[in-house]
Amino acid sequence: MLEEKSAPLGILNVPNGDFAGVFAAQFSEWMKPAGARCLISGMAGSRQGWAEAAYVKCPAGPDELARHLLWIEPGRIALVPGLSDGQGPDGQQGVPDVMRGEEVQIFGAMRLSGLRDGLFVLPGTHSKWATVRGGRVMGFRTHMTGEVYGLLSRHSILARTLEADAPLDEAMFVKGVAQSREGQGLLHEAFGVRALALFGRLGPAPSASYLSGLLIGEELRHEKPGSDVILIGAPALLARYGLALKQYGARVRTFGAEATWAGLHALRGDR
Amino acid sequence: MLEEKSAPLGILNVPNGDFAGVFAAQFSEWMKPAGARCLISGMAGSRQGWAEAAYVKCPAGPDELARHLLWIEPGRIALVPGLSDGQGPDGQQGVPDVMRGEEVQIFGAMRLSGLRDGLFVLPGTHSKWATVRGGRVMGFRTHMTGEVYGLLSRHSILARTLEADAPLDEAMFVKGVAQSREGQGLLHEAFGVRALALFGRLGPAPSASYLSGLLIGEELRHEKPGSDVILIGAPALLARYGLALKQYGARVRTFGAEATWAGLHALRGDR
Repeated sequence: MLEEKSAPLGILNVPNGDFAGVFAAQFSEWMKPAGARCLISGMAGSRQGWAEAAYVKCPAGPDELARHLLWIEPGRIALVPGLSDGQGPDGQQGVPDVMRGEEVQIFGAMRLSGLRDGLFVLPGTHSKWATVRGGRVMGFRTHMTGEVYGLLSRHSILARTLEADAPLDEAMFVKGVAQSREGQGLLHEAFGVRALALFGRLGPAPSASYLSGLLIGEELRHEKPGSDVILIGAPALLARYGLALKQYGARVRTFGAEATWAGLHALRGDR
Repeated sequence: MLEEKSAPLGILNVPNGDFAGVFAAQFSEWMKPAGARCLISGMAGSRQGWAEAAYVKCPAGPDELARHLLWIEPGRIALVPGLSDGQGPDGQQGVPDVMRGEEVQIFGAMRLSGLRDGLFVLPGTHSKWATVRGGRVMGFRTHMTGEVYGLLSRHSILARTLEADAPLDEAMFVKGVAQSREGQGLLHEAFGVRALALFGRLGPAPSASYLSGLLIGEELRHEKPGSDVILIGAPALLARYGLALKQYGARVRTFGAEATWAGLHALRGDR
């Protein structure tokens, strides 16, 4: 990685939907050299994005993805499709699942770690748990953990006695993870945050960490992680998942933004 | 029940916290006869209410509750305390739970049904599942089912493709209940609403019923209802819980507002 650039221009913030114009304004300098190539992963390839790059069905590896790049300018600019799972053999059974962008991070972490099998977890607004076998994503599940944390901590009755942006209180977070394992379910355990506050047993800052532990714990309780997990994401969130996974006895390897760059290189076929 | 009256004057809408003034304006006519007595259950007895009637600990029956009425005017106007549970033997262990108002409905339904043992379920914003033995509430659990439905259907990513107020689609609701039994957890299953919509397999109106089924199903999955359930609440919600409980093979008896009146009479000692 030679240079990095970011701008608050997510797909819902592109003026007049002029993706080509925004791209030129941001990257024309980078695209000047002959043979420059740009691969774009994430929501730019969604229905609301630059153009729709249809989901590639699991199982899928870098080769399947590379074959389905949607070229905006042939050989020069392409959108990377996301992955879908769970549609069943005839494409109409089962409840489907989707990801856009995380597949590139998974392929990058595979490349960086040399692993071709394992459980890859990408925490976030919508966390992804992907099973990789022989270098391909066999299937995955999404959990709305981050989004539900935002809703409960800012917009539910819990918000009255909770400081949503409080720094992590590790002990209370671990307590939340442990409580979620009691198995009475998130809809019940979350109300405990309110009841504990009513009895003066949980203050606004620790409430946030306890609720976060309940939610991430709920995700783990259902995913039943094994002994090894590859975690990919931003440091603050990885710290929380690392703590929670330790309660489940899982060993963790972590990757950050480098997984995205390595994944895009893998799609291009670079060695 | 001779006469009924309602006004949009919940505890957060009482001007200047003048509960006595609001009470007089609403009920002075009813309180004129000598010996008139008013028992007030629900949030009026909470910390933000008229005065705080401390929670009575489970196990508790009508007698315990009657002994702890908080008299605003002795012999004339009293606040009914709520119940608490789960604080453990020393009052400091376990995660507590609380209810205010539902205890009166439970005691009323006991009286109307003649049952002194059973599982009493009160669906709502915060659903309550109470175990009754020998005429006393032994313990209970709250589930934030109604509130989380509101948040997910109106404020999450699901809101983009969901018509929150659509009428009940029974088939889709039952499908949601069945899907929740798959056991991957609410944080995962809720995302299925989004993915199904992306593939054009679930429209905005049926999405609402499917999500409602997922949520109520999640509550039932954890509560594991037995063969008989007493349901107390408003007709529209009881219809949904009745449908869901049928999937679990439970027989249902239902009570509405009459349970509140009967419960208040039970506290007064009327036969």
